[in-house]
Amino acid sequence: MRGYSFYKRASRAFHQYPSLSKLLVIVTVSGGGVAAYNGAKPFSATYARPVEGECEKKKKVVVLGTGWAGVSFLKNLKNPSYDVHVVSPHNYFAFTPLLPSVTCGTVEARSIVEPVRSITRKKGIDVQFREAVCYKIDADNKKVYCRSSQDKNLGGKEEFSLDYDYLIIGMGARQTLSTPPGVEDALRIRQSVIDCFESAGLPSLSEEEKKRILHFVVVGGGPTGVEFAAELHDFVTEDLAKLYPTVKDYAKITLLEAGDHILNMFDKRITSFAEEKFQRDGINVKTGSMVVKVGDKEISTKVRGTGQVANLPYGMVVWSTGIGPRDEVVDFMKQIGQTNRRALATDEWLRVEGCDNVYALGDCATINQRKVMEDIALIFSKADKNNSGTLNIKDFQEVVDDICERYPQVELYLKKKQMKNIVELLKNSQKKSVEVDIETFKSALSEVDSQMKNLPATAQVAAQQGAYLANCFNRLEECEKYPEGPLRFRSVGRHRFRPFRYKHLEQFAPLGGEQAAAQLPGDWVSIGHSTQWLWYSVYASKLVSWRTRVLVVSDWGRRFIFGRDSSRI
Amino acid sequence: MRGYSFYKRASRAFHQYPSLSKLLVIVTVSGGGVAAYNGAKPFSATYARPVEGECEKKKKVVVLGTGWAGVSFLKNLKNPSYDVHVVSPHNYFAFTPLLPSVTCGTVEARSIVEPVRSITRKKGIDVQFREAVCYKIDADNKKVYCRSSQDKNLGGKEEFSLDYDYLIIGMGARQTLSTPPGVEDALRIRQSVIDCFESAGLPSLSEEEKKRILHFVVVGGGPTGVEFAAELHDFVTEDLAKLYPTVKDYAKITLLEAGDHILNMFDKRITSFAEEKFQRDGINVKTGSMVVKVGDKEISTKVRGTGQVANLPYGMVVWSTGIGPRDEVVDFMKQIGQTNRRALATDEWLRVEGCDNVYALGDCATINQRKVMEDIALIFSKADKNNSGTLNIKDFQEVVDDICERYPQVELYLKKKQMKNIVELLKNSQKKSVEVDIETFKSALSEVDSQMKNLPATAQVAAQQGAYLANCFNRLEECEKYPEGPLRFRSVGRHRFRPFRYKHLEQFAPLGGEQAAAQLPGDWVSIGHSTQWLWYSVYASKLVSWRTRVLVVSDWGRRFIFGRDSSRI
Repeated sequence: MRGYSFYKRASRAFHQYPSLSKLLVIVTVSGGGVAAYNGAKPFSATYARPVEGECEKKKKVVVLGTGWAGVSFLKNLKNPSYDVHVVSPHNYFAFTPLLPSVTCGTVEARSIVEPVRSITRKKGIDVQFREAVCYKIDADNKKVYCRSSQDKNLGGKEEFSLDYDYLIIGMGARQTLSTPPGVEDALRIRQSVIDCFESAGLPSLSEEEKKRILHFVVVGGGPTGVEFAAELHDFVTEDLAKLYPTVKDYAKITLLEAGDHILNMFDKRITSFAEEKFQRDGINVKTGSMVVKVGDKEISTKVRGTGQVANLPYGMVVWSTGIGPRDEVVDFMKQIGQTNRRALATDEWLRVEGCDNVYALGDCATINQRKVMEDIALIFSKADKNNSGTLNIKDFQEVVDDICERYPQVELYLKKKQMKNIVELLKNSQKKSVEVDIETFKSALSEVDSQMKNLPATAQVAAQQGAYLANCFNRLEECEKYPEGPLRFRSVGRHRFRPFRYKHLEQFAPLGGEQAAAQLPGDWVSIGHSTQWLWYSVYASKLVSWRTRVLVVSDWGRRFIFGRDSSRI
Repeated sequence: MRGYSFYKRASRAFHQYPSLSKLLVIVTVSGGGVAAYNGAKPFSATYARPVEGECEKKKKVVVLGTGWAGVSFLKNLKNPSYDVHVVSPHNYFAFTPLLPSVTCGTVEARSIVEPVRSITRKKGIDVQFREAVCYKIDADNKKVYCRSSQDKNLGGKEEFSLDYDYLIIGMGARQTLSTPPGVEDALRIRQSVIDCFESAGLPSLSEEEKKRILHFVVVGGGPTGVEFAAELHDFVTEDLAKLYPTVKDYAKITLLEAGDHILNMFDKRITSFAEEKFQRDGINVKTGSMVVKVGDKEISTKVRGTGQVANLPYGMVVWSTGIGPRDEVVDFMKQIGQTNRRALATDEWLRVEGCDNVYALGDCATINQRKVMEDIALIFSKADKNNSGTLNIKDFQEVVDDICERYPQVELYLKKKQMKNIVELLKNSQKKSVEVDIETFKSALSEVDSQMKNLPATAQVAAQQGAYLANCFNRLEECEKYPEGPLRFRSVGRHRFRPFRYKHLEQFAPLGGEQAAAQLPGDWVSIGHSTQWLWYSVYASKLVSWRTRVLVVSDWGRRFIFGRDSSRI
């Protein structure tokens, strides 16, 4: 599909700019052959490093955040004509999908982190890293204000500002209720688990107190909550039970989920497998339970439907629920008039709505997809070149690819209805003729917008967005001249780039006891021990560097041989 | 020597208790053969586990602390007739000699720790561990008062008390000036080093500020300070210089030592090698510099002799200087009338002076050795069995072993004077006759007490004390009946056990750049790359468990391949 559309674009370019033919051949040779055209990166030209004097001309790109979005951008940026400045409170990138493993010591925290400097060092581009928090964005003056994340050496926290030509916001989100998910938090959870076991072992505690202290409550039955509950169960039964024989029987894990099922974004087969496995393991799953209050020693839940309130004494509670915007992002949203939103709204090219040269991606952003129905008249008139008031198939076929590219919901709708293309959709609604007027056109496409969905706040989305944006930046000048995107329906010409398209790959849910569930592309489902091995191999291959790969694999090996460590450090 | 004295004692026992002959043979068989008699543990009898009903008779041993002393005691305790309770604020044992490596990430903290519970679990003895701080010792009522080291789960800190029959204090010491050496501190130092580099990389800092922030001052030129300076130098030059190219030239390390040389407890060859190596490496060694004041950004030193004061701007200062007693130990010392001391005074059997059934070992204790001159009249009269007022060689030879055992300074003195035994010493002072009267005896031994030395506050001493004490506890009942110690010169009979004797083994000083120096027994000195390999193998073999051994060796391998990680977690 992508290969095809590239050829189409290339041939279009040929017709419009015949002088390009020579250039293209050169690019083909220097870029390493035709194979380069088949992937997601149609241009893989080598970029000449600028000579000394050109430095002042470099455009300054400021990247905020070094999570999946920011690091994916940095890893994929290959054009040396930018002067890149990275600002993040953490000088490392953490492979977040393994954080639940860190909470119980299956994997060490240091094995899943890689310094940002060593990620960017080997690339041929200038990247300056600053360990700081960006506390204010001034889009009018193209400036960000930052504050050092530590103060002890500087007598008060060092503040500084950075100008930018392009700003890329990948600051992530915060958990709405409790601790944000990060390496420090994973380590704190690990300590707290040990703390509970040590506390329960003290003399002079009543039975009831021991039970309370060793009651672990996990709120949120999504993949992270489920994985944490499973890891914790393994940690307790495989390792802690041996070292704390006198209190092990008091340990209990409860998983609270407001919905009807845990893992409700997964296939039903996975959900029921997980629920049955947890029941066998003795993990208490309470679905339909909403948390209404968290006291010092008790958590109050309300059963959805009946409204019955129950109080659970707990020793430790771990939240794995929704996310919300960070304060700095909220401030910026107010400033640019985006209120009443949970994340920075961008268009399909990841550009923040309401300001120039600012991009947002990852958990702090949401793509505000354009509705087909808003543009329906413009689409119709673009297709109806001869202004006849009706479209025939020939008229329509010229714009069909552009429509599908600009409004991805069309394709989703067709897929859902099991149709091959829009022509079939039009034929469906208008059996007798293949000429359609605007009203028929409208009614045929009227349900298309129902397929618009927000992308999930996952590492996969952020990583793909980062890579997409880097690819755009790599070819900014070329695409300015020779735009490759779809037709602009609201104005003239074409968009510079194709809009961002999310490609959903596999999604895993480790369930403990060396079992996992996976939802693979094409509605395939895989459950069991073999899936755990698939999980091991996929995660090992996705790790950011050889160092982390070796460390994580040796951590897994160490856990198999020696178990998890319960030293409270 | 030990083998010989055992046979002597055994034959003595034979004569005194003929019925023992049968028992000894049985012990020989069950103990695994004659070879068992040649080591430091003359009795390696197997202990029968007590049957259920006997539990109430078990003597309760409370161990405070899980450092080298406490853990060495626990590891060597084999007699199941004790009910052991361990109280420590840390639920793990840390292999402290590798802490300097942890400060720079050469070895991970978790690789050098082992949970106390897993150390004691596999033994056939009852050990209860409590993660708590002992804040008061009541020796009169044989009780210790403890407080849980964490409070979050219990609404205020849980307090409890424990009775004991025997109390073993191995709480360690605290650094006199700054952070006590522990795993948490090593991790904090690691973070601080990274913090300094990140701070120095911020824009808008003056050259001077950058220089200040990257000036690392190490106070104390002992083995730990030297090792830390060397590790830090390697970390900066091998790893950080690559990742922080813009600020690497500002980094500077200064080592302050109040004495004339660094490593002054080592051989002069080692000292001068280390000083020359540090000079080549660019580590600024300032000997004869005493710290007089530490400000927020400056440290003031006074040159010994001239009294000249210098102010050094610094970014980070690490103390590795003297130790002092912990507050709880000071309180206890006051209570039992030991004032004006820096550690708990014990006798040569590690029993705390002034109270019963309390033992102290490791850094919190010091052995108050009895002077020969205090007992000289009693020794003379014990030797002079026929009350003749003079001693001949025959009289004397009967007690010579007991004197040497009871007063180890005698042996040290003879060694220093290169004499074989006391008889030679007596002959020396009294050439004409081999009969000596009390005055001659006094004058011959008058200088012997000058050889009394306090033991260094090292892991080696603590570990040997722990093993010694466990060995005593293993044979408490037997030795009560059949004492194996030297003659009591102040009263009648024999001491139950031989007094504790420290055996100095090798001492290492890693100097960075894959070089180390070692002082081996018998005044051998080894310096260079091969010594570093010796260091690796000795430390790997000494680690507490196979788990830590594998982890530390793989950490070393990881460092060789990937370098040290600079993520600030």
